[in-house]
Amino acid sequence: MAKAPASTLDNVIALAKKRGFVFQAGEIYGGSRSAWDYGPLGVELKENIKRQWWRTFVQSRGDMVGLDSSIILPKRVWEASGHVATFTDPLVECRSCHNRFREDHLVEAFEAKKGRAPEGGLAEVACPNCGTRGEFTDPQQFSGLVKTYLGPVDSESGLHFLRPETAQGIFVNFLNVVTATRQKPPFGIGQVGKAFRNEITPGNFIFRTREFEQMEIEYFTPPAEADQHFTEWVEACWNWFLDLGLKEENLRRFDVPEDERAHYSAGTIDLEYRFGFQGSEWGELMGIANRTDFDLSSHTEGSGTKMQYFDQANNERYTPYVIEPSFGLTRSMMAFLVDAYTEDEAPNAKGGVDTRTVLKLDPRLAPIKVAVLPLSKSEDLVPRANELADRLRRHWNVEVDVTQAIGRRYRRQDEIGTPFCVTVDFDTIDDQAVTIRERDTMQQERVALDQVESYLAARLLGA
Amino acid sequence: MAKAPASTLDNVIALAKKRGFVFQAGEIYGGSRSAWDYGPLGVELKENIKRQWWRTFVQSRGDMVGLDSSIILPKRVWEASGHVATFTDPLVECRSCHNRFREDHLVEAFEAKKGRAPEGGLAEVACPNCGTRGEFTDPQQFSGLVKTYLGPVDSESGLHFLRPETAQGIFVNFLNVVTATRQKPPFGIGQVGKAFRNEITPGNFIFRTREFEQMEIEYFTPPAEADQHFTEWVEACWNWFLDLGLKEENLRRFDVPEDERAHYSAGTIDLEYRFGFQGSEWGELMGIANRTDFDLSSHTEGSGTKMQYFDQANNERYTPYVIEPSFGLTRSMMAFLVDAYTEDEAPNAKGGVDTRTVLKLDPRLAPIKVAVLPLSKSEDLVPRANELADRLRRHWNVEVDVTQAIGRRYRRQDEIGTPFCVTVDFDTIDDQAVTIRERDTMQQERVALDQVESYLAARLLGA
Repeated sequence: MAKAPASTLDNVIALAKKRGFVFQAGEIYGGSRSAWDYGPLGVELKENIKRQWWRTFVQSRGDMVGLDSSIILPKRVWEASGHVATFTDPLVECRSCHNRFREDHLVEAFEAKKGRAPEGGLAEVACPNCGTRGEFTDPQQFSGLVKTYLGPVDSESGLHFLRPETAQGIFVNFLNVVTATRQKPPFGIGQVGKAFRNEITPGNFIFRTREFEQMEIEYFTPPAEADQHFTEWVEACWNWFLDLGLKEENLRRFDVPEDERAHYSAGTIDLEYRFGFQGSEWGELMGIANRTDFDLSSHTEGSGTKMQYFDQANNERYTPYVIEPSFGLTRSMMAFLVDAYTEDEAPNAKGGVDTRTVLKLDPRLAPIKVAVLPLSKSEDLVPRANELADRLRRHWNVEVDVTQAIGRRYRRQDEIGTPFCVTVDFDTIDDQAVTIRERDTMQQERVALDQVESYLAARLLGA
Repeated sequence: MAKAPASTLDNVIALAKKRGFVFQAGEIYGGSRSAWDYGPLGVELKENIKRQWWRTFVQSRGDMVGLDSSIILPKRVWEASGHVATFTDPLVECRSCHNRFREDHLVEAFEAKKGRAPEGGLAEVACPNCGTRGEFTDPQQFSGLVKTYLGPVDSESGLHFLRPETAQGIFVNFLNVVTATRQKPPFGIGQVGKAFRNEITPGNFIFRTREFEQMEIEYFTPPAEADQHFTEWVEACWNWFLDLGLKEENLRRFDVPEDERAHYSAGTIDLEYRFGFQGSEWGELMGIANRTDFDLSSHTEGSGTKMQYFDQANNERYTPYVIEPSFGLTRSMMAFLVDAYTEDEAPNAKGGVDTRTVLKLDPRLAPIKVAVLPLSKSEDLVPRANELADRLRRHWNVEVDVTQAIGRRYRRQDEIGTPFCVTVDFDTIDDQAVTIRERDTMQQERVALDQVESYLAARLLGA
């Protein structure tokens, strides 16, 4: 397996900022490390990933339905789920400046810098804030839940938590969904939405943030079928990423050993992507876990409501097992960007060759499907280009670009991953045809104006 | 204008719960008044509203781009925007039980119950919590912002607020978007997302909640063109609701008088919908405001970054005015549900007539576009129905329903607004055709199996 060039990740981050995929949140106020904002292209790419996910895993399957539960839930939900007790990280505090850090992150940073583990634990590690060496306390537990107060008074009765995962909103609605839809296990509930974790050290661009988005499935199954569905879901998730263009050599499975698994899990497989981070180049993209009956049983105990399924055919009441494929949406977006980033060569205006940057995104994910480019700002061409663009907008997200020389506009569309550029030139007035250029091959074809929609439709299937 | 029957709203709420549009958040833990969960049908309806909005106002316009900014932003953003100082409600406190209430809500509740205003202010009003009469303090200012702490320590430096509107995330990214997209005023940025307000008295189903969703546009314009664009946006918003099926008699404009407008507004028109609330039957659906240069100027002052536009053609630097059409997404969903709710008559199996409940949703909004119904559970029919459904799922959200008598299944699909039911019966085996029934007219047509897709495509345009 070839290693990606060390700088790909940096190039992707620079491109993402320059072209409006991702901006730093609150940038004009010095920026926040907690979150990122998704610009005009980023929001389209992110929505396209969501839509493909929803179509594949919710709408196209008879055994799946969707849900959109609230972000803020009362304390009792998080007590029952185990989050209040166990969703914690061990932190050490610098005795000099009193900032707190995760011990493992301090060790990782040391290793990334020095190429070796620190001898004698933290004794030779410097505080990232004040530089004092080796003056750390023993680790103490710190909650990763983001809390807030609702209601007119800041009191314990108003204490709520922002969800650290969308999953619990699904579990507490299990009976509601069964009653309303008459689904029988095995069946699943899918949900896309924001989640919040008070990460001590957010970092690696949009990889680890305090505000992020997940795409989660809780698949309820008779306990005896759990292993089989676990295997099927690992396969289905793996194939989804490949189908949307991730290169197989950049994806791998990690069978999480028992002592590293979450407390609820009887088995977890992570899909990892080769993001190319400094130090460890692979990062977790998603996980598939066998949560057993832990969650439904916990909520039965916490709420007093029996979270079970009554199987009429066998006259049997049981607590389903849950297989949970949990995708990071923002991480998926980052993986698709890194994977699509390519540098190759393209002819320039002087008859030579330039390096070209191109995002080889699957057309279904590309933020702009078609760019319409009038060859010049001439009054003969611009209205024709706008008219064509308005026609194409009925089907796809379309951009009209009038600035700069045509070659530079092609470069810009390549950089943002637009699969097709349609150029309206002076011949168009006579021959009623346009030139359509494909992103990856840079090949051009002359297509009659009244054939443009069908030409593109055949090449933008499902986009 | 005919008044809707008093019970429509109650019927809609009951239907929404029963069929899985909307569930109470945290119901098994006694429920939260802060938020609602959107069930399998609700999430599809809500997504369809978003998608129509995004297509109409963002993708189909060359002068609009999208954004998705973070929910949590540092305190400084909300200080500069004026929210920390002015986003407050005056509250009175019951001297007996120490619960706090909005004075105007106490008065409204009294009026709704007694049909007249309370004489002598709150003196004759009972506390909704403990019943004590007239023992309220003078009103004091209370912040409607939802706050939280990020980072390893709960300190002032970690104080953040959950956004009470998506708008500020757009303003602080104004320069980023201009640089990345090269848009020139007049142009706009659209955003859909969650917002949070610590409402004292959430209520009226999904109308007033602490967690809700907005669809907002900030349209940046040269100051001299602001009035013209204000008028155009009022028109465009009005037409969007009508185009998606809201009845014109249930929609009205309210020109907000100067003393009731937000502090930043030089003019606001609310679009109100006739929800049929007790007391006042109309409620605010959305507002269009002329925010002048208030926001960009405030952030220039707050951040020290000049939030202006440099017009190269006229060699002139200026602060654009902002026209803001701000839609309530969850309120829009509620309006579409109330408006679509209809009771009419349908023939029953005994040759008589039954009352039929039907959601006459525009097909573009309907959660399920097509239901495929095998006439019986026969092994001859069910696989054929599943096969047809799988074909149709490539284009639309499709449900297969196998339970109960066919008449009851039609009733259920009518109740959830499914535009077409396709019945696979025993004749299908011989004639290779199915019966397609239209929701509103209940008319049925026999359509050849290989014509089903084109038959439906012609009737589900844009859905």
